[in-house]
Amino acid sequence: MSKSTIVKDKDFLNSVFSIITDYLESTQKGNNKVINFKKPEELKQLINFNLKEKETDNELLNTIKLAIDYSVHIGHPNYYNTLFCGPNKYSLAGDYIASTLNGTMYTYEIAPVFNLMEEAISLILCDQLRWEKTNYDYMFTPGGSLANLYGVLLARHYKFPNLRNIGLSSLGKELALFTSELGHYSIMKNAIVTGIGLDNVYKVKTDLEGRLIPSDLREKIEESIKKGKIPLMCNATIGTTVYGAIDPLKEIATICKEYNIWLHADGCFGGHLVFLSEYNDKLEGLKYFDSFVFDFHKVLEIPLQCSIVLTSHKGLFKECNTMNANYLFMKDKVSYDSSLDKGDASIQCGRHIDVLKLWIYFKSLGLDGLIGKLRNTLKVTKYLCDKLKKNNRFELLIDPEYYNVSFHFFGELDQSNKDEEFWKKVHLLAPKVKAEMVSRGSMMIAYQYQTQVDFKKPGYNFFRVVVLLDKTEKDMDFIVEEMKDIGKKLMTKF
Amino acid sequence: MSKSTIVKDKDFLNSVFSIITDYLESTQKGNNKVINFKKPEELKQLINFNLKEKETDNELLNTIKLAIDYSVHIGHPNYYNTLFCGPNKYSLAGDYIASTLNGTMYTYEIAPVFNLMEEAISLILCDQLRWEKTNYDYMFTPGGSLANLYGVLLARHYKFPNLRNIGLSSLGKELALFTSELGHYSIMKNAIVTGIGLDNVYKVKTDLEGRLIPSDLREKIEESIKKGKIPLMCNATIGTTVYGAIDPLKEIATICKEYNIWLHADGCFGGHLVFLSEYNDKLEGLKYFDSFVFDFHKVLEIPLQCSIVLTSHKGLFKECNTMNANYLFMKDKVSYDSSLDKGDASIQCGRHIDVLKLWIYFKSLGLDGLIGKLRNTLKVTKYLCDKLKKNNRFELLIDPEYYNVSFHFFGELDQSNKDEEFWKKVHLLAPKVKAEMVSRGSMMIAYQYQTQVDFKKPGYNFFRVVVLLDKTEKDMDFIVEEMKDIGKKLMTKF
Repeated sequence: MSKSTIVKDKDFLNSVFSIITDYLESTQKGNNKVINFKKPEELKQLINFNLKEKETDNELLNTIKLAIDYSVHIGHPNYYNTLFCGPNKYSLAGDYIASTLNGTMYTYEIAPVFNLMEEAISLILCDQLRWEKTNYDYMFTPGGSLANLYGVLLARHYKFPNLRNIGLSSLGKELALFTSELGHYSIMKNAIVTGIGLDNVYKVKTDLEGRLIPSDLREKIEESIKKGKIPLMCNATIGTTVYGAIDPLKEIATICKEYNIWLHADGCFGGHLVFLSEYNDKLEGLKYFDSFVFDFHKVLEIPLQCSIVLTSHKGLFKECNTMNANYLFMKDKVSYDSSLDKGDASIQCGRHIDVLKLWIYFKSLGLDGLIGKLRNTLKVTKYLCDKLKKNNRFELLIDPEYYNVSFHFFGELDQSNKDEEFWKKVHLLAPKVKAEMVSRGSMMIAYQYQTQVDFKKPGYNFFRVVVLLDKTEKDMDFIVEEMKDIGKKLMTKF
Repeated sequence: MSKSTIVKDKDFLNSVFSIITDYLESTQKGNNKVINFKKPEELKQLINFNLKEKETDNELLNTIKLAIDYSVHIGHPNYYNTLFCGPNKYSLAGDYIASTLNGTMYTYEIAPVFNLMEEAISLILCDQLRWEKTNYDYMFTPGGSLANLYGVLLARHYKFPNLRNIGLSSLGKELALFTSELGHYSIMKNAIVTGIGLDNVYKVKTDLEGRLIPSDLREKIEESIKKGKIPLMCNATIGTTVYGAIDPLKEIATICKEYNIWLHADGCFGGHLVFLSEYNDKLEGLKYFDSFVFDFHKVLEIPLQCSIVLTSHKGLFKECNTMNANYLFMKDKVSYDSSLDKGDASIQCGRHIDVLKLWIYFKSLGLDGLIGKLRNTLKVTKYLCDKLKKNNRFELLIDPEYYNVSFHFFGELDQSNKDEEFWKKVHLLAPKVKAEMVSRGSMMIAYQYQTQVDFKKPGYNFFRVVVLLDKTEKDMDFIVEEMKDIGKKLMTKF
């Protein structure tokens, strides 16, 4: 590359950097709308999606600005729509550097620093899980669904090490998976992927707080055995997607040990709670678990994707997935601990450096700093819940385990008779409130309903605010006031 | 976030940006070593991997610099080790912006611009594949191995739509996969993942150029049928990992159509050739294929990961993987073409924005510009091959289809009698040459051997230079001179 190109690189990149800092400043202050929604046909008028024509640097910078303008601003103070939030300067710095280096994780030799960082992160989690440091293993994955996939693969290989060769058809028996009816759908998708089949996934009933009911788990296991199936794995969720419920880990572990069932914990959303001593009792059961999954990009201010799956069985990833491709794993006479080479143990080949953004973020806080942030978020969540309880336009569905605040919003509806007609109106109000939010661009909160549980109001829409890091009591006040204001405005049309 | 924090954000980020531009400048000029290798125990002395302690901004910036120093410099002019190269300013800009926005791809609503960009990219590929625009579908994935996984899932669902429910055990028959013995190992790994089993993967023999032999494919299919298996999918490789061979697509298609076998093309490495008219004849058979996979992060200057899988069966991803999770896919009364919502069709849930880096890169060149870069790389590769043919210290293994130059290096070995003793010396010389390269940090080229084919010198190490974009004839001269110099130096110790 000639020197003149390099100088031009700097000019272009510096323009990009200034777009980035301006954007972060403006979004973090909430100067822009949370979303400026356009339909596909409108957006196609605003941005030229024709790929064949080349654009100049200035045109590209303009395209970048438009791409930003018409995207959802996750880092906006009034964004509460997903289980992840805007990244901060530290995690972003890590991600920028990872892209710049463009390494891949398959061996220590090709990514020495980042393999040691992955090891260090895994060790701190192993510690929190109270697992033996000499007998655990880990893998970073692009997202929680794939991390959960490893859970199923490990469970299957542990019980039937020959299955990787002979295949499921030759086993002659069906394998059964167990998860609560509020567990993440990736357990179902992974039953498809692994060839186990949806009919062999048993959905265990949940209680009014959204937690798996152990006695129903036992019944479902017995049912599967009666049908001639082999109970393989039970998924326990630490933080269900909608309610944030934590399944009773110890009770689940006791039952599963009895039946020799692999214990998998989906902590994608709630896994960070292992850092908080006040959750020790609830999470103590994890020490009996065989695998544990956590999305670092959820809750923490780390950009997608950064997930990990750990197992309390050393070497199992490799036993399960090895192919010994010699073109990748030649040793070049360099001697080092080959357990740091994760490539052959992974179901990916090239693997993006996900750990650096997490590392820089973690080190910017230290463990105590991270814990402080999480505890503050618990406080702010409690503040919002208390506020909603005191206001008769809102009805809290559940006292949250941590940051998920699920509530019905009544707006200006007449509450004198809360009959079915009333609840139908509540149900219909939610999409109107959301549409008004999107149109104002003032705030973004998701709504949904649940039918699969014996819940307080099955089938009726409710809102879910995910209170993530660095939110303040003032932000919570805004949610309540803005929703009330939207309610008032809509009443005139309702 | 308070204003003072935002100002500090800018300071920190600006320091990171200046580290990035300095690094890119120095690496692209080749001012640093390609690699400064340290063993784990040495690296642990140089970088503090203890996570519990917080670091100040200055300490973090220093950690970032160290992380860069001890990483492999993929963007260095003399790096030829992998099938991917250093990104350029355009793709990096796209990746930085994607991290900054931190969106996720599951619905059009949450990522409108990026869903339309994915659609536009898929359309241009559909065009090159000569597939019907009204009857194709696509999915972006984190890497080619997972893209190949979709191939197996689609094949299975297309033939046995009920299998996602009943599972493989209930099918009562084994499914068989076919791939050449030089096909990528992910086909094998995916046989494990999907429960099909390694014993049901038939490895078809390759010819002296590394291409699948159609007559052996037919034999293997017949063999599988005799054993009572159902032939499900054949993988044809466009660019095998080591030799860059292109399997005979038309012949494979003819045989597979006869047996009603799903045609999957693994174009992870060579998929970009669909843009070059001089490969029309070789790739024409793709129009009969059911699925096609391409890693944009290979060959092109796009950072990991950015892969796509396309199928010529519209709607099949969704039919195969749908769960209809209502908390994600509520429509909020916004009406738009729901085929843009990929979340429910994916085996991931959250999905990183991989398309923006590709988009900006593509638009910076235009289609003609991209084609020009690829053609220039073909020229430079030919220059290297011609040079190696003329020099008796080197022996080219194969005339490459495109950019993979595989050759034995003899250094100063006495070539008067090329007996088995001689080849053993050639074999042993390779790791020594590589170690000297790493120690000098002057260049990075991979070596490997192949045992699974009836090749010219089975079992003996050879080098493989992957000539990627923007290399020059001068760079090729350097490879030859540097290797000769290393050969001379080593002779004194040999």
